[in-house]
Amino acid sequence: MKKFQVIFQPSGARGEVLEGKNILEASRELGAEVESICGGERACGKCRVKLVDGRLSPFTDEESKFITELEKAAGYRLGCAAQIEGDVLIFIPEESRAGKQVIRKAATQRAIQLKPAIQLYYVELSPPSLRDPRGDLDRLKEGLRERYHLPSLDIDYLALLKLPAVLRQADWKVTVAIWMEKEILDIKPGKVEDAYGLAVDIGTTTVAAYLCNLRNGEVVATESMMNPQMSYGEDVMSRISYTVTHPGDGLERMHDLIIGGLNQLSRALTEKGHLLPEDILELSIVGNTVMHHLFLKIDPQYLGLSPFPPVVRQSNNLKARNLGLKVHPSANVYVLPVEAGFVGADNVGVLIAEEPYHQDHMVLVVDIGTNGELVMGNKKILISSSCATGPALEGGYIKFGMRAAPGAIERIRIDPKTLEVDFKVVNEEHWRSESKNIRAKGICGSGIIDAMAELYRNGIIEKSGRFRPGTPSRRMRISEGKPEFVIAWQEETAIGKDITITQADVRNVQLAKGALYAGAKLMMRRLGFEKLDKVILAGAFGSYINKEEAMILGMFPDCDLANVYAVGNAAGDGARIALLNREKREEAEEIARNVEYMELTIEANFQKEFIEALEFPHMSDSFPHLRDIVRKEILEQ
Amino acid sequence: MKKFQVIFQPSGARGEVLEGKNILEASRELGAEVESICGGERACGKCRVKLVDGRLSPFTDEESKFITELEKAAGYRLGCAAQIEGDVLIFIPEESRAGKQVIRKAATQRAIQLKPAIQLYYVELSPPSLRDPRGDLDRLKEGLRERYHLPSLDIDYLALLKLPAVLRQADWKVTVAIWMEKEILDIKPGKVEDAYGLAVDIGTTTVAAYLCNLRNGEVVATESMMNPQMSYGEDVMSRISYTVTHPGDGLERMHDLIIGGLNQLSRALTEKGHLLPEDILELSIVGNTVMHHLFLKIDPQYLGLSPFPPVVRQSNNLKARNLGLKVHPSANVYVLPVEAGFVGADNVGVLIAEEPYHQDHMVLVVDIGTNGELVMGNKKILISSSCATGPALEGGYIKFGMRAAPGAIERIRIDPKTLEVDFKVVNEEHWRSESKNIRAKGICGSGIIDAMAELYRNGIIEKSGRFRPGTPSRRMRISEGKPEFVIAWQEETAIGKDITITQADVRNVQLAKGALYAGAKLMMRRLGFEKLDKVILAGAFGSYINKEEAMILGMFPDCDLANVYAVGNAAGDGARIALLNREKREEAEEIARNVEYMELTIEANFQKEFIEALEFPHMSDSFPHLRDIVRKEILEQ
Repeated sequence: MKKFQVIFQPSGARGEVLEGKNILEASRELGAEVESICGGERACGKCRVKLVDGRLSPFTDEESKFITELEKAAGYRLGCAAQIEGDVLIFIPEESRAGKQVIRKAATQRAIQLKPAIQLYYVELSPPSLRDPRGDLDRLKEGLRERYHLPSLDIDYLALLKLPAVLRQADWKVTVAIWMEKEILDIKPGKVEDAYGLAVDIGTTTVAAYLCNLRNGEVVATESMMNPQMSYGEDVMSRISYTVTHPGDGLERMHDLIIGGLNQLSRALTEKGHLLPEDILELSIVGNTVMHHLFLKIDPQYLGLSPFPPVVRQSNNLKARNLGLKVHPSANVYVLPVEAGFVGADNVGVLIAEEPYHQDHMVLVVDIGTNGELVMGNKKILISSSCATGPALEGGYIKFGMRAAPGAIERIRIDPKTLEVDFKVVNEEHWRSESKNIRAKGICGSGIIDAMAELYRNGIIEKSGRFRPGTPSRRMRISEGKPEFVIAWQEETAIGKDITITQADVRNVQLAKGALYAGAKLMMRRLGFEKLDKVILAGAFGSYINKEEAMILGMFPDCDLANVYAVGNAAGDGARIALLNREKREEAEEIARNVEYMELTIEANFQKEFIEALEFPHMSDSFPHLRDIVRKEILEQ
Repeated sequence: MKKFQVIFQPSGARGEVLEGKNILEASRELGAEVESICGGERACGKCRVKLVDGRLSPFTDEESKFITELEKAAGYRLGCAAQIEGDVLIFIPEESRAGKQVIRKAATQRAIQLKPAIQLYYVELSPPSLRDPRGDLDRLKEGLRERYHLPSLDIDYLALLKLPAVLRQADWKVTVAIWMEKEILDIKPGKVEDAYGLAVDIGTTTVAAYLCNLRNGEVVATESMMNPQMSYGEDVMSRISYTVTHPGDGLERMHDLIIGGLNQLSRALTEKGHLLPEDILELSIVGNTVMHHLFLKIDPQYLGLSPFPPVVRQSNNLKARNLGLKVHPSANVYVLPVEAGFVGADNVGVLIAEEPYHQDHMVLVVDIGTNGELVMGNKKILISSSCATGPALEGGYIKFGMRAAPGAIERIRIDPKTLEVDFKVVNEEHWRSESKNIRAKGICGSGIIDAMAELYRNGIIEKSGRFRPGTPSRRMRISEGKPEFVIAWQEETAIGKDITITQADVRNVQLAKGALYAGAKLMMRRLGFEKLDKVILAGAFGSYINKEEAMILGMFPDCDLANVYAVGNAAGDGARIALLNREKREEAEEIARNVEYMELTIEANFQKEFIEALEFPHMSDSFPHLRDIVRKEILEQ
């Protein structure tokens, strides 16, 4: 096979690439970050690049869906469609660059009762003699039993191998790390007081990790990164799809990527804490079912096919070394259980953090990611369901959608009188009206919610979602026969063109919020009640959306706004809780087993509810609290 | 470093060897089998070779202990002392060739109650549907619970990885292999009836393995081999010593050798049984404590230093894959517990096979190897001890001693009237007197016992062990100032010289048997009784020695000969029993924990007893049964 020289601008990344590979593949090989949401399926149009020099395969019909005639003439191509046929020089436009995402998954303060699985015990032993020639392990175990009344213990094989040398080196005074009062994981010379663990939330997009001191529960350091699988597709389906289309090594590759990512996080976190990765004695892992399966190297393909059964639901305890994790060689990995194919260990994490099963009131927990997971109930009953929200609420399938990276519009206000727009971008303190230097690159999830709510509230879109004809604003216009609303003018952006909300964008958000709303409604009907007492919005997303705006859009059924909580990354909190308190693991196991999964798509009224839920809420009796919000606004004006 | 060409004759093995390596090392590298008992310590003199051409390092004083001036002139060198200094052609004399040993560890017929740790269960499951989207593992476990009332099960990680594909490929009808009603090790499509296991006795010299069908207990095939560690020293101390003198990789090398040997045995055995190594789902392992530690890659150095504590005493269950064993990837390895530093898992094997702890009578179990292990007791009490017999009883440290290989004298008779000798060699049906073509190469363990007993019985040696001056035989002679007795004349041998028993040989046997006898006596004293009801002689060795001759020599205290049993490789039987009956594993654990180890060397009377026991038995009141034997002989003549 021939190879050609490929250069990416503006980064300058370059190297040789095999003939026939496409630009997106080449960008991954050479480390040039080209955005892709669909994972190279020619479906998202995010990987548009510009051919500056050289030869690519002929322009295809698929590309014309995302590239205008004018752009085509200027050299624009879809990275996943254009194949390399000679040496090429490629320019990656600003909007197609996969910038370092701003990760907002910080550890929240929660009071967690400390009862970690790893405990340290210090013992002093008498050395062997001809009168007392007991074996080293017997000596150690009997010493532990005498002093701490520990029951019969196993020992990790690698810990056993180091035992004789450590005992003698330490003059028979050692600290023993024991897992679950069951297995000796390590023997260290002398007195050691601190042990460390790592809680990890493997999101489809973001991996967040918390390094914790197991003695006092303190978060020593937190770190997050983009899931390294991202360049193989932004959503779970494209990850599954990669493993299916690469039967030889696709699964292995996905697995290796996430393991490599975790190893990177372990190094970074322990460095921050002046520790070594070998100090990490346990990991606690949450993630949706696909992330969960890929982490464990379990074939996820059946999760992508009806009826979507997971391979394993129960929690797992594995040796970190067997997964390739570079932490303490005897470390344990605790993986939280999953509830169902679409309700993963991340949701179990949310549940043990929020404990709806301990509440008297009827609670709805909405965990919003690319997939929406709903749990509803109280201490008597708990049901779960999941709905395909699609990536719209996170900026995907939105014309100018992007992740919450620098330059992404995250807040939008529309003046009710002038219909003029003000916005705020990620990593900037000021609003655009206050600082003229701000340049937007696109709109991220919370900005999209804001935009929709503001457009609706100001009558620019109707409750059907249609742009109201004749809206008196220069921002309202028709482009290629479809109405759109300009959020940022070309001179306010870094991408050289206006950033708009299109009719299609509105429709995508409607599909997403309609799915959530219809799901919640069907669940309420199943449980036979009319009114939610409390709504918990989880997801990294959850902490940054404006709960008022979410309610205006109708993302969940009516509830007193005072009882709506945005709790941030509750899944990650759940992983931390499980790391620090082993009794919560039993709770997790029980919950995962007992939450009844409700398959929404086979409910008789699903289609009807869904279609009804597509509309934005009426200010009617079914939304009394929404009416209150609007009334308050009117009074304030 | 320079390399030189080395050729070994008569095998023709050749290759390049680094300058400075000695001939013994070179022989290992090139696969020429040079005998060595001391492991290259210049202590045994078994590795004598002849330099035919080329240059070696100068002759040393150490070598002159084993090589006469005449031999030196003929080019004889000690393989472990002579270093390569140029291209050389080496001849390995017949007596220095490490021939393929005749392994006599066949599986004996014992009725074993079948209750293997591995059980197979067949289940038919309903496939997932939207109404029943349970996870694959839940589905399987619930199916097993419904049909077989199996409790909560774990699953081996690799079994989990293959689960989804096998279930679908088999249309949800599968056979599940479960270990200890606890862990799923394998899932096979359809109905499978047979599962296989491997019982292994890792002897210092010989490794014996039995491939068993776990359904019916049948021994499918047996195979044995010389322990591949043998070329690094014949006894346990030289193995320990190798790991200590090679701190970088010595332990790893010893471990790899035995694992490699087991892999070779697994391949050979499964081939014999028309199976694959992957059909082996469990291994059950016995061996002395050093073999046990090396098998597990545990540092054995403390076993070589007073007070000789083992690192681990309890039984171990490990994944075969973690040890590098090439059998079923999820197979379990059960390693029997050890009793003490010198009373290993092999002895536990002997005990669960012979069950002295179920007997009313007072039993002595003697397990003879390079190390002698004694267990004494009955259902009320059981004590153990061990004594350093040295390798004399197996042919080591005996001038013409050799292992039980073809050509080794294994039986000796001395005519009481003429004092003429007849002998039998391994692998020959006839005695030398019946077939003049037989050529002896040396004397193996059972031949040495025979020789000693016959020499004593015929008054050629006195009870002190001294050759009786003036013995009227042409075979009695003085060589280099010391008396010796010719067993085979030069023309009856394949080594070109007379095979004799020397005064030093007699002394070495006396040391060995004296240690056993003194040990047994001290144990009897500890337990406060005078008379043994039963003696069990175990060890591969045990099945071939003549129990009468052993008694004449005084290898154990007096006992009615009708109650002396030679049971052969009872340790291997114990491994098979533990493989086939998991309840015996609990018995093993309990015994290993409860047998009290008696350190003989710290007993007040040890020296006195030992010195007294060096003499051959008096035909006195303390040996009533011995007197009977002799009386019977006199009557018969």
